[in-house]
This record gives sequence, structure tokens and C-alpha cells, in this order.
Amino acid sequence: MPSLPPDGTIRDETGSQRLIGYVVDLSAGDGRGRCHLDVDERHLNRHEMLHGGISTTLLDSAMGMTATLAFDPVGLSPVLTVSLATNYIAPAGPGRVTATGEVAGHGRSVCHVSGELRDAEGRLIATATGVFKRVRGR
Amino acid sequence: MPSLPPDGTIRDETGSQRLIGYVVDLSAGDGRGRCHLDVDERHLNRHEMLHGGISTTLLDSAMGMTATLAFDPVGLSPVLTVSLATNYIAPAGPGRVTATGEVAGHGRSVCHVSGELRDAEGRLIATATGVFKRVRGR
Amino acid sequence: MPSLPPDGTIRDETGSQRLIGYVVDLSAGDGRGRCHLDVDERHLNRHEMLHGGISTTLLDSAMGMTATLAFDPVGLSPVLTVSLATNYIAPAGPGRVTATGEVAGHGRSVCHVSGELRDAEGRLIATATGVFKRVRGR
Amino acid sequence: MPSLPPDGTIRDETGSQRLIGYVVDLSAGDGRGRCHLDVDERHLNRHEMLHGGISTTLLDSAMGMTATLAFDPVGLSPVLTVSLATNYIAPAGPGRVTATGEVAGHGRSVCHVSGELRDAEGRLIATATGVFKRVRGR
Repeated sequence: MPSLPPDGTIRDETGSQRLIGYVVDLSAGDGRGRCHLDVDERHLNRHEMLHGGISTTLLDSAMGMTATLAFDPVGLSPVLTVSLATNYIAPAGPGRVTATGEVAGHGRSVCHVSGELRDAEGRLIATATGVFKRVRGR
Repeated sequence: MPSLPPDGTIRDETGSQRLIGYVVDLSAGDGRGRCHLDVDERHLNRHEMLHGGISTTLLDSAMGMTATLAFDPVGLSPVLTVSLATNYIAPAGPGRVTATGEVAGHGRSVCHVSGELRDAEGRLIATATGVFKRVRGR
Repeated sequence: MPSLPPDGTIRDETGSQRLIGYVVDLSAGDGRGRCHLDVDERHLNRHEMLHGGISTTLLDSAMGMTATLAFDPVGLSPVLTVSLATNYIAPAGPGRVTATGEVAGHGRSVCHVSGELRDAEGRLIATATGVFKRVRGR
Repeated sequence: MPSLPPDGTIRDETGSQRLIGYVVDLSAGDGRGRCHLDVDERHLNRHEMLHGGISTTLLDSAMGMTATLAFDPVGLSPVLTVSLATNYIAPAGPGRVTATGEVAGHGRSVCHVSGELRDAEGRLIATATGVFKRVRGR
């Protein structure tokens, strides 16, 4: 587990993050994980719009970080995604999109998180709700 | 819209498909869209397992193709994903995984599809249910 | 389709509404359907808490009314629930609970709605996201 | 917790079960919880069809029992529903409907269950996937 860089962002940490190119941003200090991506041609589907699976990747990452912060604000202790329900509201083209998570409620081992994905103009692209589980014993 | 190649597979069609590297396979002729990926280091998350967002990308692609076949078995007319609920059952490491869609029911404009993602040993990695909408007037 | 009573509430309209006893409230005029229930012993599960299926019934009714208002603010034209994803955040005991819907986005035929169920103290009991479809030709 | 009656069914156990009138059936001994309801006028919505909330109640009950059996085949130890995603495939009118659960995968504390609701002719009315959590320390 890497320690958080001074600017509060995580870049190129994992294979999938390097492949897709998103940035995890924990700099706000408000308990909400954020994740942004500068969408380009590599991220588009056959409609020339952001692929829904990549939207879900961004939401999953931001929401999982939010759950991590809920269980343990300093340690970045890992969580697993149990389930994720995504709603595709509007298409997004090239440009920056940002996913933000918010805790809806949590117990000792399970955390409910809501998420939103918005484009640079603040337009709502997708929403999601997810269940995350704390990984113990690591 | 590309015509389907003689072997029934679609490769490198879109930016996101080239980026992630999955193959869409419609060769079975059973109305089920399939999508496979040879998972390597580029697809792993911080647990060194297949990223859930990529699992969802594969499921979305296989299930969307299944909806396409349900509305129009020959034309590959486009559909949009309205919503997708994914359940992460077990982790997957490197190696081939395959997503398969199955129609649960459909009307004139909306199609319900179920999906499964399995690894090379047939182990269930994730399940999903999704709502897809026909795109008219193109 | 009944016309809306002067006080903006709908009571005892259908068999299921009479059975469970919830009240649909459209009086706020803010485009959000609301639905409340005074939970008593008849609504409890084996944990002596509000049954999750009844929570979903309230959310579905409030969210469906919200979709109805989005498509047609005056006519109460009917919608069908296509899919509904509910997250059970905290248990609720006897007392009033209120479900509220909010439109996340909509096109000509499909509407995305978010919903919350809260108890009398404002505590979040459940959240939901749903897809609703306009019923045409009636 | 009641002991299971000799015929493997549970009737009138809770307030909500008495109110709605469904029967939990564990008699098959195949690890799948079942739940049936003889739909009549009391269960219908404004379209004169089975209310989606009641469909979800039946699915939740059958799937929760399936999770209970997965964690503990003999004890009927309690579980809580964490999340439930329901897809409404076709309308159902009066007559018997049966919900059936099936385990998709489970760990020590969390169980993934799939469910189907079918009418007396076997027609698929609704599908669901859910996450259930074991309640410990009782």
C-alpha cells in the first residue's frame, strides 16, 4: 500500500490505473474519494461516447476510496467491491469527467456508498450505489 | 457499423476495445453475446486481481451485444446501456475470462439481459443484470 | 386514473395501497413524489423491523410518481418500473417513514429516479435508484 | 426463531407475512428458499397487476432464506438484506406466483443470491440479485 503523496493524489498505482489513465484524488479532505479522467479517443465506445464500463471503473474507484476513508481515515486499508449498480444518465464525449463518492451508511464490515460521475460542465453522466466490504487481517 | 467478420468476432473496433483488449465473439449463433479478455498485469487492481470496472466493461459489452441480437438478429443495430447491476462473486487473476449475456425478457424498446463472467476453469467471477434500450432513427 | 384530490394526496387507490396502508403525497408541488407509511406490527419482519420488501414498495411508489410527474406534470399518466436497486442502510421500527423520489435524468421514454426512505427523525433507512418507462397509447 | 414445521413451510410467522399472505417453502431440501403467494385483488397496483414492491417482498424473502441455508443449513440463523436489485420482466395478474433463490457465491459473512419470480405457467415475472449479511452474536 503506497503512502499518499503530499498533493493527495494517486497516479499510476496499478496496472488498470496506468492502462486507463485515471487519477485518484483525496486532496479535499472531506471524506469523499474522487477520481478523474481526461477522456480521449481511447475511452470511447461504438457510439463515440465514453464507454459505460470505463464510467463504472471511475465510479468504482472513487466509491471504493470513499469506503476506505469511512473505515479508516488515515490508513488506506483495503476494501473489496461486493456489488455496484450503475445508472447511465447522459452520454459524455472527450474532456474531463470526475467521479465522486459519498457514504450513505456503514457498519463494522460493510459500507454503502453513493457515487456520481459528472463532466467538466457539471452535467450528470452516471450515478451508482455500491456495497463495499472491509478486508481484514492484512 | 462494421459488418461482422467471417469468424464472428469483433476485434479492435473502438478505442476502448483496443485499449482494454477484449474480443467480442458472436460465432456461437445462439443469441448470446460473448466477450473474452486475456487478463494480464495491465488489468489488475491494487489487490493484484482483475479490476471490477474491467469486469463490468466485459459484462456490459457481452450483454449489450446480446440485447442487439434480441432486437435485430442480423443488423447489429445499436443499443444503449440504461442501467447495470454487477455482483462481484470471486476474484480473478491473470488468464482468460469470458462474459456471456442471456436475454431475460424484452419489449419493443427495452431489453432485460443477465450476464455471467467466468474464468478459464469455469469459476463464476461476477454476475450482472442490465437494462438496454434500442437506439432508433439511425 | 383518479384525479388528484384537493389536498394532493392519494389514499386507498389500489388493492396494494389499501393492504399496506401507505399514502402518496404530491402536495409539495416540487416534482418529487412522496409516500409515507405509519409502520406498525403488521409491517415488521422476523427481526421486528420494517420488512425490506415494504421499504421497496414505498420507494417504488414514490419514485414511480416522480417519474410520472417528470413525463407529464399534470396528467398522472402511467409509468412502469423497469428495474429498481435498493440499498438497506439502517433498520426502522414502528413510526412514520417517508420515501421521496428525485429525477436524475430522463429522455422521451425512460426516466432515471433516485429515492430515499427516512424515518421521523430524518435517519436514512434505505436508498434506491430505478428506471421507469412511460406507458404510451392509453 | 420458530423451528421448521414438519411440512417444511413457514406461514404467518411475522406481521408482514400475515399482512401480505405469502408462504415460505423450504420443503425441497435443495438449498433454495422458495416463497409463494396467491395473488388477488389486494396485491394489485394501479395497472391491475401485481405491485412491484410485493414482487420484491417475495424475492427478498425467498433469497434471504436461501442465504440463511447457505450459512447454516439447519439453524435458520438470521440474515439481513444489504442490497437488492430487481428487474421487472413481465406483468403478473391474479393467481399463484413463486419466488426461488439460488446462491451465486458466499464467504464467511456475505452471501450473493440470485432470484426468479415466476407465475403458475412458469413465465418469468421478475429477476433479482441480492447481497445478504450474516447476523452474528445472537
